[in-house]
Amino acid sequence: MIEKIYVTYNDVHKLCQEAAPKLLESFKPQLMIAIGGGGYVPARILRSFLKQPGSPNIPIQAIGLSLYESLPTANDKDVEEPGTKVTRTQWLDLSALGEMGNLIGKRVLIVDEVDDTRTTLEYAVKELEKDVELAREKFGGEKAEFSIFVLHNKDKQKKGVLPHDMLENGRYHAARTVGDVWICYPWEATDIDEHDRLGAEQKAAHNANQQY
Amino acid sequence: MIEKIYVTYNDVHKLCQEAAPKLLESFKPQLMIAIGGGGYVPARILRSFLKQPGSPNIPIQAIGLSLYESLPTANDKDVEEPGTKVTRTQWLDLSALGEMGNLIGKRVLIVDEVDDTRTTLEYAVKELEKDVELAREKFGGEKAEFSIFVLHNKDKQKKGVLPHDMLENGRYHAARTVGDVWICYPWEATDIDEHDRLGAEQKAAHNANQQY
Repeated sequence: MIEKIYVTYNDVHKLCQEAAPKLLESFKPQLMIAIGGGGYVPARILRSFLKQPGSPNIPIQAIGLSLYESLPTANDKDVEEPGTKVTRTQWLDLSALGEMGNLIGKRVLIVDEVDDTRTTLEYAVKELEKDVELAREKFGGEKAEFSIFVLHNKDKQKKGVLPHDMLENGRYHAARTVGDVWICYPWEATDIDEHDRLGAEQKAAHNANQQY
Repeated sequence: MIEKIYVTYNDVHKLCQEAAPKLLESFKPQLMIAIGGGGYVPARILRSFLKQPGSPNIPIQAIGLSLYESLPTANDKDVEEPGTKVTRTQWLDLSALGEMGNLIGKRVLIVDEVDDTRTTLEYAVKELEKDVELAREKFGGEKAEFSIFVLHNKDKQKKGVLPHDMLENGRYHAARTVGDVWICYPWEATDIDEHDRLGAEQKAAHNANQQY
């Protein structure tokens, strides 16, 4: 049976709060890219904690990437293997970003809730780097530097690959590393009080070995 | 002294959960547009509760509208007066939406956390309607129908104006209507446990007259 872990909203809030000073020290992001839907909540919370006095909020661009769903079909055999294909449901707004020109030379933090198979993150990094390269061919300028923040990294065999220098140079930050468990995020709970109760129960049980 | 109300994450979750069946019954949204950053959290939660068995998730497009901030510029003197101007920090992704063609004839739910002066919502509705009209000139087809969901509407003099038929035909849904108070959303809390404690205290005090 797959172990389930129950993550409460306040857990998510505190994971972001805990990570923000580290991210500010190591990477100083200038722009966040939230991978929707899972990245929306942590990105919004992170924005609060990344704000520096006297500076405006760090802008967030949302992108929509979907791995686990396909359109419903009459014949279920047509459904894609889960996790085999990334679909863009939204990409960056070129006009607001000055035709990507504004990505050039920027420190960009990609935010998602979970690094599971890594397929989505690989896709996001590759495609964003491609966009920046196209912009640089047009406008010149420095490379953009991408980093990643996720609430949870699952310690498992990954299908997706991230650039070595990202993993080695502290540009990959998972607030927690967990096993290959089923993570129940609060925004999917149909009974949030029961969800919190289960979360509190787990925290009490795992107290000596807190992992989420 | 302005009254503050403390809204917890679980309050937000329950407001969305409570609203979803009403939205499904009255409006049946086919697409959500989340106004970032405040709309990100309610939009993500709503998505869970708007999902129908056997159907895919309702897609979310995020747009970024800013009333109180401006993008960081080399020249800080460019900073706008707060609340006087809406700045787009992200707009719809035209390519993913098929050059807006996919908005034609759709029931679109615009999601934000609060309807304060209504300036941002007026801007969003007007600009989205304009985009759909441009798309219809090109492709033909039905008008899109817009509706609004906010967690809180402040009962105050509004600067922005929404279409009459939106307000009259149940296409405006505020989970709660409050006075002109200072709403403390959880994603801005620097101490979330204290925030929750204050929220619980208020709930106990206002128990007979629950308004949030």
